[in-house]
Amino acid sequence: MRILMEFSYLGKEYSGYQIQPGKTTVQGELEHWLSEFFCSKINVIASGRTDSGVSAIRQIAHFDINEEILLNTLGGRITDKSMHSLAIRINYLLPTDIRIVRMSQIEGDVHTRYDAKSKTYCYNFYLSKIEIPYLSQVATWLKYSEIDIDNMRDALKILEGRHDFTSFCASNTDVEDKVRTITSTSIVRNDLGFYTISITGNGFLYNMVRIIVGTLIEIGIGKRNVSDMKLILDSRDRTLAGKTAPADGLVLKEVDLV
Amino acid sequence: MRILMEFSYLGKEYSGYQIQPGKTTVQGELEHWLSEFFCSKINVIASGRTDSGVSAIRQIAHFDINEEILLNTLGGRITDKSMHSLAIRINYLLPTDIRIVRMSQIEGDVHTRYDAKSKTYCYNFYLSKIEIPYLSQVATWLKYSEIDIDNMRDALKILEGRHDFTSFCASNTDVEDKVRTITSTSIVRNDLGFYTISITGNGFLYNMVRIIVGTLIEIGIGKRNVSDMKLILDSRDRTLAGKTAPADGLVLKEVDLV
Repeated sequence: MRILMEFSYLGKEYSGYQIQPGKTTVQGELEHWLSEFFCSKINVIASGRTDSGVSAIRQIAHFDINEEILLNTLGGRITDKSMHSLAIRINYLLPTDIRIVRMSQIEGDVHTRYDAKSKTYCYNFYLSKIEIPYLSQVATWLKYSEIDIDNMRDALKILEGRHDFTSFCASNTDVEDKVRTITSTSIVRNDLGFYTISITGNGFLYNMVRIIVGTLIEIGIGKRNVSDMKLILDSRDRTLAGKTAPADGLVLKEVDLV
Repeated sequence: MRILMEFSYLGKEYSGYQIQPGKTTVQGELEHWLSEFFCSKINVIASGRTDSGVSAIRQIAHFDINEEILLNTLGGRITDKSMHSLAIRINYLLPTDIRIVRMSQIEGDVHTRYDAKSKTYCYNFYLSKIEIPYLSQVATWLKYSEIDIDNMRDALKILEGRHDFTSFCASNTDVEDKVRTITSTSIVRNDLGFYTISITGNGFLYNMVRIIVGTLIEIGIGKRNVSDMKLILDSRDRTLAGKTAPADGLVLKEVDLV
């Protein structure tokens, strides 16, 4: 029986999502505690990994479990209510910075990685000569005193659509096909005074959002022109794009299935 | 010589702003490290206190210091640059969750408490059946699945203007005059999915923002009507208002002097 799991985590204390020997990872914690809970080895497959230090507001994953074990745990019936209390019971075991937000049964052929049709990442930053500890909880601190948000918005718009994003992919990747589609983007300043860059697409390459943001910041501070974005994209050359922005501003906001 | 200090802090680890014997407070840290730095007892007077657990994005305070001591420390001249590096040097001593953002000389008769003409507080909250660790860094978690923001906005508008806010003041206060003016309010949802209630006024009573927010939440979930807000305000009776909302959603955003 296949279970869909929506979950949320704070990435600060983890060496990324993906399980690695000898490191504390989100996947490692989930698999360990789900296996403990069900007294049965559970393999968790998420829609994708997130880097070290990156958080998720609403990530999705699935795992397969023996029907009898699940029904025994639920007291015999799969209902919204029994699945909600199941999530709460597993959350008691999990570290407090990882929470299962929702569990539900899905068809056995649904696969959260292959069937994820849309993901939204948010990247938060604020400008200040000196660090603002409150804002640094959720946003990257940029020391610049001003930045041209309109130019950043225009440059970001250039990336919308279906493109080969080789220029915005870390070079150490195994992925062959670097064509992805960005469906929507925005940059908004909120009432607390930090900016959020939102990027929605059908999939993201390794470090793609952080390299896009790094390039946008260089455009925002006038180190590059808006029109450079098109040249960088067309070049399919990682070395022409900007620096990879720090992980602490990045959060996976949501993932939608087909 | 009087120095104006803009500063920022994360309230989580502090028993509030105001100095108290045997407790770790923001004022206590500031006075201790400023006194250490200048080898001279420094008394810090802020625009107002914040409760235990409450943060500040931009708070202001002033202190008086012997001109000779200050000039010796600055290398002889008060300039924007020398004051900026002074702030950085003192920040090396301070805990990392308190930062002096700006220092400048002001006239000896300017007083950050008596001359603060406007303060803005923000209160952040999010709705979810299960906690979202990332959002809990800056926002209070409300377990409700829906809330009527339009009703909350309408109720909050009723409080704009000059009123006696006795109903929204903690009963254990020494303040006699409970008339304050709220100049603007808003409730906005941002791209990360949490809401920010912003309230700007010429001054706030003890727990005033948190009691207003607690009352708004009760209106938002339908436990009270929008029109109740006027009745509560007119009653001048704390027991008729809602519960005091948790401290973790509250942040002092900014303070302006006359």
